[in-house]
Amino acid sequence: MTLEKKLDSADDITQSATGDAYLLTPGPLTTSLTVKESMLHDYGSRDGSFIELTADVCNRLLKIADAEDHHVCVPMQGSGTFAVEAMLATLVPPQGKLLNLVNGAYGQRISEICRYLNRDFLVQESAEDVAVDVEELNNTLSADKSITHVSVIYCETTSGILNPLEQIAKVVAEHGRALLIDAMSTFGALPLSANKTPFTAMAASSNKCLQGVPGMGFCIIEKDTLASSEGNAHSLSLDLYKQAQGLKTSGQWRFTPPVHCMLALAQALKELEAEGGIASRERRYRENHKILREGMQALGFNTLLAEELQAPIILTFLKPDNPAFEFQQFYSRLNARGFVIYPGKITHAETFRIGCIGDIGSNEMEGVLLAIKSTLSEMGIDKF
Amino acid sequence: MTLEKKLDSADDITQSATGDAYLLTPGPLTTSLTVKESMLHDYGSRDGSFIELTADVCNRLLKIADAEDHHVCVPMQGSGTFAVEAMLATLVPPQGKLLNLVNGAYGQRISEICRYLNRDFLVQESAEDVAVDVEELNNTLSADKSITHVSVIYCETTSGILNPLEQIAKVVAEHGRALLIDAMSTFGALPLSANKTPFTAMAASSNKCLQGVPGMGFCIIEKDTLASSEGNAHSLSLDLYKQAQGLKTSGQWRFTPPVHCMLALAQALKELEAEGGIASRERRYRENHKILREGMQALGFNTLLAEELQAPIILTFLKPDNPAFEFQQFYSRLNARGFVIYPGKITHAETFRIGCIGDIGSNEMEGVLLAIKSTLSEMGIDKF
Repeated sequence: MTLEKKLDSADDITQSATGDAYLLTPGPLTTSLTVKESMLHDYGSRDGSFIELTADVCNRLLKIADAEDHHVCVPMQGSGTFAVEAMLATLVPPQGKLLNLVNGAYGQRISEICRYLNRDFLVQESAEDVAVDVEELNNTLSADKSITHVSVIYCETTSGILNPLEQIAKVVAEHGRALLIDAMSTFGALPLSANKTPFTAMAASSNKCLQGVPGMGFCIIEKDTLASSEGNAHSLSLDLYKQAQGLKTSGQWRFTPPVHCMLALAQALKELEAEGGIASRERRYRENHKILREGMQALGFNTLLAEELQAPIILTFLKPDNPAFEFQQFYSRLNARGFVIYPGKITHAETFRIGCIGDIGSNEMEGVLLAIKSTLSEMGIDKF
Repeated sequence: MTLEKKLDSADDITQSATGDAYLLTPGPLTTSLTVKESMLHDYGSRDGSFIELTADVCNRLLKIADAEDHHVCVPMQGSGTFAVEAMLATLVPPQGKLLNLVNGAYGQRISEICRYLNRDFLVQESAEDVAVDVEELNNTLSADKSITHVSVIYCETTSGILNPLEQIAKVVAEHGRALLIDAMSTFGALPLSANKTPFTAMAASSNKCLQGVPGMGFCIIEKDTLASSEGNAHSLSLDLYKQAQGLKTSGQWRFTPPVHCMLALAQALKELEAEGGIASRERRYRENHKILREGMQALGFNTLLAEELQAPIILTFLKPDNPAFEFQQFYSRLNARGFVIYPGKITHAETFRIGCIGDIGSNEMEGVLLAIKSTLSEMGIDKF
């Protein structure tokens, strides 16, 4: 059945295996039933089997980033922001100076963290629908030799924009500065290889493209840099140097780990491998993205970003210019049909977002398009 | 069958409903199958149903502490230590001075956090097997008017000792200082009522006596104190003022919550209520404690603490004076029999610990005694 035919079908109520709505958000996401079922166990967090599991998960994460040789993986309890804050606090020394590349809310959050940390920083900002300007970065680094570190968001989910990470890494390396990457919403689906894209550290989380559940993040950090970072961190809990030291000494987390979240991540990493690794996952997400983009355009919606700027993670749609389109109602009606979408976060335009990551494929993408079509019809919206 | 008869039985291999070993530790613990099954769902963390769940969990936690009137509950991602650090950072202002009551590793951890936070503090220390001295506290507070806050560990799981919380709270209140309680290993099983035991704030976690899974903590904080704590915290992630503000404004966590851990906690709180509340849970733990204590004494083991100092949470046993008793072997053999016990943490004596909390009762306590008896026999240990 073609999508067009499906869009005409009346039977558009979709539900996941567990009867929950599909989460078309930047995360938490819909995970597989097997990932969730892996949490039906209790492990002693200082017992040998959990120590092995931690080591295995960290090794698999390093492998995804081609970073086994010169980097170490340090897991961190909490949300992704905890891992980002831990990375900045542990790796930017008090006398360092950070150039923060900002084109959305997550870049701004890094500035906010620097203010808490009392770290010197400056900002290179572009509009939310414009990628980071690599030439400007090059000029800034040439002009200001006191900059020690550069931070960037790989995919800024505020808009869904993809920043030119490889070019940024190349320029930062040429200038001999340290690159810190927030790879939160891309890790496991978009390439990030320590061999091709030099970086000092990156932070990501268990519950985005890795398709685990939320509750922890992790940083992948150059061994030499980590080794010289003792005493930098502002916080006992968020001290990655101490966390790594604890893991190295005993294989144990210093403080109680999110055991069930780790069990889910271990299973999720096996499922990523079974899918064919990140190349296959990227392919599936790109296909999801294509179906969603084309389907929404067919329904009359416009995207915020030009296609070449768009990561296959989450899409921002402009709110239609029709008084009958009330977002909260649109959201609730889609929710009742089994799809959770996401409000917009762009400051200069009214938008909403739909994610295309998680344990979802073409069926769910076609499903949400059907649900949107019915919802618009219910809301009395024919055309924009 | 009497315990003595059971101890003679050969059939001593025990396993939980999910085939896992029982966790007789200070946490993570054995949880019920229904608690774990509640994690077989994915919720959108900014969706209405999760917002309701968060509010419900916070209300139930406040109710357990009789703290609905003047306190607010603020959940925090991460382990219990994250919640303790967040409490200290947010509530002790930079110009404050903390008197830290220490009789074990968790008290010492509070000192370590204060060093990270750059907060002025002094320590009143007793030996690990001696409860906090209330008279000394009274004298110190009389002598040093610059002390603004007092911190104490309700049950110090280093030894399993119970500190005289009610008397401490009374003295601190009489002196008009703020009391911060680490109630990590007691909350949900031992009484802590804001009506009877005045406190400014307390921190606890999802995975101890509440019998949820690890991944988050929470603080219960006097509303007025929290309202005046803006700008104190050293960390964006651990700022309880901002966390509370976010929850108040939108009902949402600022940063991705551990959704599945919250689902488990919601179920665990219902099960606590179904059990008859904390009075019934305390009764069960006291019964577990009694069986374990008496059974171990019958097998020839000695406890570190006198009975009147012992909380019904975790028991410390002295390593027997027998060269054949090698702890790692004892641990592994018990593990193979389905029981995970815990190493000791006391600095001045060789010890090990066995917990009596979690979704376990007299059967499991008798089970571990049987397993210990067989293990000793296998190790060729007849008498100490």
